Amino acid sequence: MRQETTFIFDLDGTLVDSVYHHVLAWQEALEEEGIQLSVWRIHRKIGMSGGLFTNQLLRETGLEINEDRIDRLRQSHARAYQRQAARIHPFPGAIDLLRTLDDNGIRWAIATSGRMETAAQNLVALGLDPGSAPVITRDLVKYAKPDPDLFLAAAERLGIRIETAVVVGDSIWDMLAAQRCRALGVGLLCGGYGSDELERAGAYRVFEDPAGLLNHLDEVGGRV
Amino acid sequence: MRQETTFIFDLDGTLVDSVYHHVLAWQEALEEEGIQLSVWRIHRKIGMSGGLFTNQLLRETGLEINEDRIDRLRQSHARAYQRQAARIHPFPGAIDLLRTLDDNGIRWAIATSGRMETAAQNLVALGLDPGSAPVITRDLVKYAKPDPDLFLAAAERLGIRIETAVVVGDSIWDMLAAQRCRALGVGLLCGGYGSDELERAGAYRVFEDPAGLLNHLDEVGGRV
Repeated sequence: MRQETTFIFDLDGTLVDSVYHHVLAWQEALEEEGIQLSVWRIHRKIGMSGGLFTNQLLRETGLEINEDRIDRLRQSHARAYQRQAARIHPFPGAIDLLRTLDDNGIRWAIATSGRMETAAQNLVALGLDPGSAPVITRDLVKYAKPDPDLFLAAAERLGIRIETAVVVGDSIWDMLAAQRCRALGVGLLCGGYGSDELERAGAYRVFEDPAGLLNHLDEVGGRV
Repeated sequence: MRQETTFIFDLDGTLVDSVYHHVLAWQEALEEEGIQLSVWRIHRKIGMSGGLFTNQLLRETGLEINEDRIDRLRQSHARAYQRQAARIHPFPGAIDLLRTLDDNGIRWAIATSGRMETAAQNLVALGLDPGSAPVITRDLVKYAKPDPDLFLAAAERLGIRIETAVVVGDSIWDMLAAQRCRALGVGLLCGGYGSDELERAGAYRVFEDPAGLLNHLDEVGGRV
């Protein structure tokens, strides 16, 4: 029996060039709360659930964690991010990659730690209809990355076993969550992390961006 | 004869938390010229001379390189960067590190690919007087990083042989330029690059940020 490969994609930093904008939007939100944190440390946390991210930051900085503060942070991050929306584009190859998979009958879904309120515009930028595209957002699961719930929900949506899926992401949280559910993690450098970080977190292969993955699709089980 | 260690520091991303702001300011400037480039690729070029950076980008994108365009890019980058100036802070440990070196009679200088127009505010943020601090900017040499001219000029200013200097930087351009002039390169992760990139470019040691370097100063020849 042949094992058919299915792809589960992260969104921000994997299909859409939005990580750096998210990072500086978080810096702005944190500063409004009087929290000063090195920007690279924010970058390294991006991609995990926003709630977990703020919890962890507040704990590390020794500040009081309360619901009001977490809500304010989330809202001011969303505001700061929206202001940069016009500068956010799909990565080279992203649209081609999804189309090539479709054309070859290879199934895929998107699983993002973000909420539909920020994900929708990115889906439109990818030429997808937010209402019908196979997308699992943070709204649909209890725990976001690095828990594997988003990937498990995507597998369920696709009607496949998660052990046959390739998870494509740019952050170590994608790779770690992929290991948790025994999917195969494939890392992309276009979120701005180093290949060593992705490999140490379990990446099976690392490519530059969606165009790089498309060029090497056969290496990860996508026969076209 | 004992070899006295001297430190030559990069500025942006090494002592001051400004790399991500520079990156998005370059994205903005490039988009004004109709040039769309993935943000992580801009990040990987930061730290080399601005002129070299724009030349290389224009060459890679196949666009015409002319003086007018390069001037416009430089000016619109500077404008976009200045708008974020209020959010740029020294890294944890940066001010302490320079003070500790001073207190222990260990000499140091700053060598930056930036021009004094953008460097001055960062020096002030570090508690330094731009008029008297030992700083070599891009204005003072013919070629910036990855050429070693800035480091050689810093060594001359300090009256030391460059072979006894430790160059501290966050980007591979710092490490490559250090190798070119036989200085020892020490990498910091706070500019947002991976340790493998810095090590592959010749870093002798890699620390998280200036606070990390201060804690491990003895490892790189700074006896305090």
